[in-house]
Amino acid sequence: MAGIENQPRPSIEVPKVGLYSQIDYSEKKVDLTSLVTESSLSAFDFSLAPISFPSAFEKLREKQTQSQTRGISLQTPIWTFELEDLFITISTPSGSVVGVTSSSIKLDKEASDVQLHTLLLQKEIEWASHLGLKGVFLPPITHESKEECLPNYARVINQIISSNQSHMQYILPIHLDEDVSIFAWKKWNLFRNLVGHQTLLKIALVLSESHRPGIKARVAQWLGEPLSHVLLPASRFIPNRKGYPVLSRVDQEAFRSLYMVAPHFVILAPQKPLPQHTCNGDASLSAYSDYIRHLASNVDPPTCAFESQKTFDSFAKGYSDYLQAPLQPLMDHLESATYEVFEKDPVKYQLYEQAVYKALVDLNRAHDPVVIIVAGAGRGPLVDRCLKAAETAELPIKLYAVEKNPNAFVTLQRRKAQDWHDKVTIFFSDMRSWVAPEKADILVTELLGSFGDNELSPECLDGAQKVLKDGGISIPCDYSSYLAPMSSVRLHESIAAYNEPSKFEIPYVVMFQQVRLLADPAKTWTFTHPLPASGDLVDASIDNSRNDRYSVNRFKFTPDTEGLVHGLAGYFEATLYKDVVMSIHPTNHSPGMFSWFPLFFPLSSPIHVTPGTQLEVHIWRCSAPSSKKVWYEWCAIPKAPLQTCTSQSVIHNPNGRSYWIGL
Amino acid sequence: MAGIENQPRPSIEVPKVGLYSQIDYSEKKVDLTSLVTESSLSAFDFSLAPISFPSAFEKLREKQTQSQTRGISLQTPIWTFELEDLFITISTPSGSVVGVTSSSIKLDKEASDVQLHTLLLQKEIEWASHLGLKGVFLPPITHESKEECLPNYARVINQIISSNQSHMQYILPIHLDEDVSIFAWKKWNLFRNLVGHQTLLKIALVLSESHRPGIKARVAQWLGEPLSHVLLPASRFIPNRKGYPVLSRVDQEAFRSLYMVAPHFVILAPQKPLPQHTCNGDASLSAYSDYIRHLASNVDPPTCAFESQKTFDSFAKGYSDYLQAPLQPLMDHLESATYEVFEKDPVKYQLYEQAVYKALVDLNRAHDPVVIIVAGAGRGPLVDRCLKAAETAELPIKLYAVEKNPNAFVTLQRRKAQDWHDKVTIFFSDMRSWVAPEKADILVTELLGSFGDNELSPECLDGAQKVLKDGGISIPCDYSSYLAPMSSVRLHESIAAYNEPSKFEIPYVVMFQQVRLLADPAKTWTFTHPLPASGDLVDASIDNSRNDRYSVNRFKFTPDTEGLVHGLAGYFEATLYKDVVMSIHPTNHSPGMFSWFPLFFPLSSPIHVTPGTQLEVHIWRCSAPSSKKVWYEWCAIPKAPLQTCTSQSVIHNPNGRSYWIGL
Repeated sequence: MAGIENQPRPSIEVPKVGLYSQIDYSEKKVDLTSLVTESSLSAFDFSLAPISFPSAFEKLREKQTQSQTRGISLQTPIWTFELEDLFITISTPSGSVVGVTSSSIKLDKEASDVQLHTLLLQKEIEWASHLGLKGVFLPPITHESKEECLPNYARVINQIISSNQSHMQYILPIHLDEDVSIFAWKKWNLFRNLVGHQTLLKIALVLSESHRPGIKARVAQWLGEPLSHVLLPASRFIPNRKGYPVLSRVDQEAFRSLYMVAPHFVILAPQKPLPQHTCNGDASLSAYSDYIRHLASNVDPPTCAFESQKTFDSFAKGYSDYLQAPLQPLMDHLESATYEVFEKDPVKYQLYEQAVYKALVDLNRAHDPVVIIVAGAGRGPLVDRCLKAAETAELPIKLYAVEKNPNAFVTLQRRKAQDWHDKVTIFFSDMRSWVAPEKADILVTELLGSFGDNELSPECLDGAQKVLKDGGISIPCDYSSYLAPMSSVRLHESIAAYNEPSKFEIPYVVMFQQVRLLADPAKTWTFTHPLPASGDLVDASIDNSRNDRYSVNRFKFTPDTEGLVHGLAGYFEATLYKDVVMSIHPTNHSPGMFSWFPLFFPLSSPIHVTPGTQLEVHIWRCSAPSSKKVWYEWCAIPKAPLQTCTSQSVIHNPNGRSYWIGL
Repeated sequence: MAGIENQPRPSIEVPKVGLYSQIDYSEKKVDLTSLVTESSLSAFDFSLAPISFPSAFEKLREKQTQSQTRGISLQTPIWTFELEDLFITISTPSGSVVGVTSSSIKLDKEASDVQLHTLLLQKEIEWASHLGLKGVFLPPITHESKEECLPNYARVINQIISSNQSHMQYILPIHLDEDVSIFAWKKWNLFRNLVGHQTLLKIALVLSESHRPGIKARVAQWLGEPLSHVLLPASRFIPNRKGYPVLSRVDQEAFRSLYMVAPHFVILAPQKPLPQHTCNGDASLSAYSDYIRHLASNVDPPTCAFESQKTFDSFAKGYSDYLQAPLQPLMDHLESATYEVFEKDPVKYQLYEQAVYKALVDLNRAHDPVVIIVAGAGRGPLVDRCLKAAETAELPIKLYAVEKNPNAFVTLQRRKAQDWHDKVTIFFSDMRSWVAPEKADILVTELLGSFGDNELSPECLDGAQKVLKDGGISIPCDYSSYLAPMSSVRLHESIAAYNEPSKFEIPYVVMFQQVRLLADPAKTWTFTHPLPASGDLVDASIDNSRNDRYSVNRFKFTPDTEGLVHGLAGYFEATLYKDVVMSIHPTNHSPGMFSWFPLFFPLSSPIHVTPGTQLEVHIWRCSAPSSKKVWYEWCAIPKAPLQTCTSQSVIHNPNGRSYWIGL
């Protein structure tokens, strides 16, 4: 099971739609109040607006020229805005206005006077912070930005963020106006690495005025990054048959990807004064916001298509990118609420029922009842399914259920008294030490974790195997683990926020949201049950080193894949019986099944990979016989084609020092 | 001044000479006691000896075969050494024996049974640790070691080190038997990065049997690494005229480099039984140890050639690679002992005297005394030198000395009463606020730090400039700062040991030892004094932003330079007056001057650079007018020729958060 704990859930951000009118704000007809009113009338949730007028920059420059002739530096705090130079002068309803810094500021290029640009930026941000704005747009990074200027721009931003105590977001607009998005990403990557961990620094992706080929790959590049806004020029919209603005099919697809990762969308409205604003003849601006909301309501939830949208919503909302420590099912007892959540999975138990049904049919014993043992029966869902499978197959069974959790066992007793009666015999015991009244033809268990073996299914089944007849069937009969390199700034920063290196040595259960898979998952290893017959099973059960594993996987990156590897995404695929497969592998995820989110193995230092590189991932499943612990260790090594500079990882979690699963 | 604080000094390791006889240890004639006796009679400080005989490995293999047929895994602790399989069986005098693990262990290559090799290594190390050996030699890395096997080897070492509580050193022998040393280094770099911070893991460099070209570059590759031993095969020695073994001229040079960084040398003696051991006819083994000691005694101390070896020794011993926080000379008062140390510099004050002499001669005022102000006179050494210069020049001067430190001022009063009398007038004041009785022709100061301006000489001289006549002379008249990328695992680990990220944002004063400069130092910026005449000096003194600086340097690496950049080495070069230059820049270090060690700007994450790469280093000198602080920020960005994976640094010390110098 995926290890959902009963913790307070983080609230999910519902995408909002904003408006940024590209008007001439220095025309004195426009004021902030009318702008917000107009925007809100057109059903926008918020507006973007400039903080100061160009006149502020001009006055500052003049002041500087005077100072220079007098030999005084500008850095001294002798300058302040005059009221008439500010567009945003009042505190607006919380969240309804996001400030935009002056377009005169050129810190991303060689400017004639960096000090002047720095000062205006500092003053605008101080003002925005004073007013309590929730966010401020910084000078953008475009294809004209010069790499050699970014270190100094980063230094200025660092200085501003660290001297400001507010929780205002600093939003860096990045123009996707290049055909090769990788260059924009490289600049961003340089910038944010220079700035270091700054959770308040976000990205606004600015789409180009018109559609260009390759939008899908360009958008994919950003899915692991801390996006907060996507800016959509109105000119990208095309009229539908009724004349309402809609996005092209390709843009709709891009929207769907972005919707999962960016909480806010902003329409860049044409450069006309607001009152005359219309589009496509008679459609008002609200046609845009309505359309964005319409698109959003039709986007599938992440990971896979769910049969029942409602079930998923009620279950998963709030878990996006939320790090959960995996369960310790052998050491701890699950709570009743946890059982209840997982029993609701509409798909998982259906698959188990199919598997049992097919096994019964294959055994085809009409008169001699098939002995089924459900080991780890919990509150009984597998018992129900076994009974149902036998009923469908119209074949007789003899059913034993064993459970070690005393609380769950109370429920099992109630279920037996009320529902099952003589059809089931229940036992209160740990399956590893339980002595069964007779050996089973079929042993049914649900012990899998997100990574397959990470909740110690192999060790439990080795221990329980003695209750299975020679040649008996284990459901599941095998399971494999898969790993893929992935990028997610948000997950990495969530761990970094603990400020404790050992937190990077724990695999977490996560419902991925701001996550980009950088390659297809590759198989690491497989466990098969039952073990081949052996006379030494009693001896063997003392020592679990037979379940130790070591796997090396090499990932190649496609020509358009460049990014930071923040960790490894772990999945499992299990054969319950013959063709009945249960999987959370992204390419064949059992549709509608929600019991498992992927496992995230973090890397303490992200690794930058490029199309030419290969990433060699080593992972070990280790055990220490004396300490009754099982753990993973992992590392990743980039292999460049040439002898170029690389950064590799350390071996994480040596000797299980930060994380282990207790037997 | 270089900021030597009165802290307890770390003890310097005196190089020791060891012996490793390449004999057949399983011949029962040899025992440990006779080995140690023999070695000690030949004047060796310690011996290397195998921990177990090959029979141990054979017995273990046999045991494993038995277990496998019985289905029991070897990992269970069922195996232990038999006494007859061990060579080292007793605890020897502390430090006189270093254990060598079995040559049967092949963890660096694909072995038929990794588990077996791992188990023997674990057992040997457990035994060595039990006996309290100071160090143990691990299975070596050679040109035959396979890169893909190193992650698992590293995992085993990690496991062993972390499960062992002793302070035993784990010494990894690395064979320099390849023509291109870079491949050996790449393997080591992979290995240690996988292992992570392990201060107990050291390197033994094994030189090849015979000399090969390019030894100098091969040795240079390792100067920043944690070397503990150098293994010298006896076959590399050649007989001198008297038949005694000596090293070739090239090897002597290599020895000199290695002597500075590796504390122990080991002679690999030929494969004959010990008693018959002789070399070159009649010379005994002690000829080797004597020769190594002879060479060591003739090696120059680091950094530069010192005029007076004794002065340097008494001064610098114990400061090698010892991190010292720079002084805060404006905020704190120096202690008397600190003055005393620096006054002993045999070169620095000589240079000042020359500079004052030349300035006096240039002014050539036979009748009108030249006014000299010594600002920051300390306990008077510059006053002495000014008087001496005037005497030599036979020209009249009028001398004022000002000092802000009340304790130093007491000494100045005593000096005046006892030595100087009316030749000097002394003032107790901060030079920045002092009102002089008359303006000076020459202003003499000694305010430089290791990086030139890092003890705020620019700010002090701006403040003191008002006591200088228009057209007057400042000694020094300019100073420039220099930076070079450098590699030093030891320095990086010393900082990492604090376990506090902010410690990577402090520039340290260090006498470099296990340090490799990766490129020649490049100039960052220059300060010139006095400032050009200006009517606004009073205004200007309020604001120090004129002393802000920003520099970008690009370092290229020579074809044989590959390594990890752990930080930047900072130096200064100053013009005292005209051709009188005072410098700690490595290529023109003022001979014999010891007042300054270099400044080390660390990088929190090392950057791997290769011959094809360029390293772009950005450094800022910043000030905040309101907070009376000056600080540096720095970052390093590798630029690869192709779009390959790189790791860059963050901007260190943003806003002076971790380190600043108080005005």
